[in-house]
Order: sequence, then C-alpha cells, then structure tokens
Amino acid sequence: MSSKSSAAANGQALWAKVPKANAELFALTYGALVMEVVSDSDGNVDEINEQLEKIGYSIGIRSVDEFLAKSNSPYCKNLEETANVLGKTAFKMFLGINCDVQIYNPPTSFSLILHDNPLSLFVELPDNYKDTLQYTILYCGVIRGALEMLNYKVECTLIKSTLRGDDVDEIKVDLKNILQDGAGEDYQEE
Amino acid sequence: MSSKSSAAANGQALWAKVPKANAELFALTYGALVMEVVSDSDGNVDEINEQLEKIGYSIGIRSVDEFLAKSNSPYCKNLEETANVLGKTAFKMFLGINCDVQIYNPPTSFSLILHDNPLSLFVELPDNYKDTLQYTILYCGVIRGALEMLNYKVECTLIKSTLRGDDVDEIKVDLKNILQDGAGEDYQEE
Repeated sequence: MSSKSSAAANGQALWAKVPKANAELFALTYGALVMEVVSDSDGNVDEINEQLEKIGYSIGIRSVDEFLAKSNSPYCKNLEETANVLGKTAFKMFLGINCDVQIYNPPTSFSLILHDNPLSLFVELPDNYKDTLQYTILYCGVIRGALEMLNYKVECTLIKSTLRGDDVDEIKVDLKNILQDGAGEDYQEE
Repeated sequence: MSSKSSAAANGQALWAKVPKANAELFALTYGALVMEVVSDSDGNVDEINEQLEKIGYSIGIRSVDEFLAKSNSPYCKNLEETANVLGKTAFKMFLGINCDVQIYNPPTSFSLILHDNPLSLFVELPDNYKDTLQYTILYCGVIRGALEMLNYKVECTLIKSTLRGDDVDEIKVDLKNILQDGAGEDYQEE
C-alpha cells in the first residue's frame, strides 16, 4: 500500500473510533470564537487573522500528542510522507473529512485541498470582510503548531477559500526549516 | 412508549444521522472561546459568565430551527414533555450524550443531569476561577435561547459542576413565563 493510501485507511479507522460532537454545534462554536475575536479588533482585519492563526497554533500544539498516541502513524521519513499523514490521517481524524494532498516539486511545499470545510458551515461573510478575513485560517495555525512539535518549521497560507468564491479551500504549506532535536546546531557543526 | 423513552429513541436515531466533528477538537475550540472571553474581561468573572451565557443564547436561537426541522419531535403539550425532548432528544442530537431529566413538583422546573460533559474535556480550572467561573454556562444560554424561540421564558442555572468538584453537571431550568404567539397579550385580554 502506498504511503498515501495507508495514511487514508488509518484516518478512516481513527475517525470511526474517536469520540464525536455535532458538526453544526462545532461550526457555531467556532463562529462564536471568530465573533469574539472580531469584536476585540476594532475592525483591524490583519489583527483578526493573526489572532485566529495563533489560536489554531495553540490547538495544534495540544493536539499533536493526542494524535501521535492514538494514530500509530509510521515515522515520516520526508515531507511527502508527513504531508500524507497530515492530510489523509490527521484531517480525517480531527475533522472527518477527506482532503487531497498535492506535493510540489521540489518537495519543500505541499497543498491540502478541502472539498468540505466543517468550519465554514452556514458562513457567509459580510462584504467588508469578504476578501480580507481569513475565516478558516485556524487550520493554518493548527498545522503550523502541530508540525513545529515535529520539528518542521513551516509557513501556512490559505490560498483558496470557498468563502471568497473559490471552488475549494486550499492550504499551502511551505517548509522553512527543520529544527534540530536534542543537541543544538552549533554542536552538530563541530 | 412513554414521552421520555420515545424522546430518547428519537435522540439516538438523530445522533446516528447528524454530521459529526471530533469531540476533542470541539472541546479545544470551546476552550479557545472561553480564553478569548476571559482575556477581554479584566478578570471580572461575572462578566465572563454573562458573556459565555449570551454566546450560548445566540447559538440556542440559531439551533432551534435546525432541531425542529430535523427532529420531527411531537408538539410538546407541557413542560414535562418539553424537558424530555430537550434532555433526551436535543442533548443527544447536539452533544451525543445521554442526560437524566428530573421534573420538579410543581412542574415549573426541571433539571438536566449530565454524566459526561463534552465541553469540559481536559479542563481544569485554575484556583482563582475554580469556584466562580461557570465554564459550561454556555449550555444555560443555549437552553434559554432555544426555549425562548418556543415561547418559554426560562431561567437556567448551573447548580452542579464537575469542575467545582461535584460528581455530575446539573442544569436547573425554571419556567418564568409563557410568551404569547401572534396577537399580543393586550389583544387577548379584551
């Protein structure tokens, strides 16, 4: 079985097992969170996006242990395998959705393409936020936080969004740096 | 079948059908919402509780149509039937949990007793909030909002909480007033 299809099978099995909540209530709760952040921002949309991303980051940091403990995913030898586990196993386990994983060449970037987006159920952005508010930027933060715990320093960008009129949501992940575990880089260079 | 057991069977069937999200991610998202509200409050815990209740209220208002459309619940002739539909059908459909419904005498109050509380997964309150922050007061707001749409004006109180050391969570609902539909009260009195 390829890394992608075994990651998908694992995601499917995990999703069947994890405790669940109502997707609608989850979407409404996330909506309430966005509203809180908006109401704190004096309409500064960059600040809103940044704050939502930060909240995602701390969720990502907290989720990764749970994921590793439950998922029994294989050790990922390269970014492509990591991308598949993230898109096919973790997104399925946490959101119950299938997403497409697209690896770029050179393999320092990949995209996750979401055909369903549980966070944006029922959402329609008002005109003044439509092109600027990155409603589901939470995902970018979650991915950045989770991958950082696995020593990948990445940059995540929401490059397509159904809320802005695109046909899918697409999250692009660019690898910036692989952090070193244990002894620092200085030591290893000696 | 009694009103309670048919409400429970309906809840079970609805829960099987509704789209789901990961309960853990839901709990973390709610935690992020509470953190946002706390960070806005300058430590004023009454304000935090009030704001969380208000957020619940607007979720309740938005959820009730969805519930009525999907649940096919019978018309409730009295508060006892309403309590059973709320506790046995709606709580199951939205949270996936079974809760006990206790009707008081006279039947103007009831309690919902939760043995599991999806909102407070992983939560431990710091000492300075332990006795005062009503972390899961969101439920009270949701119930107040939903019942208001059904013309019941109620007061909801979190009278037991596992986060404060109780063995269950208990939400007491007191009926204050039955609102009139259509023509106002003035008209009906003439």
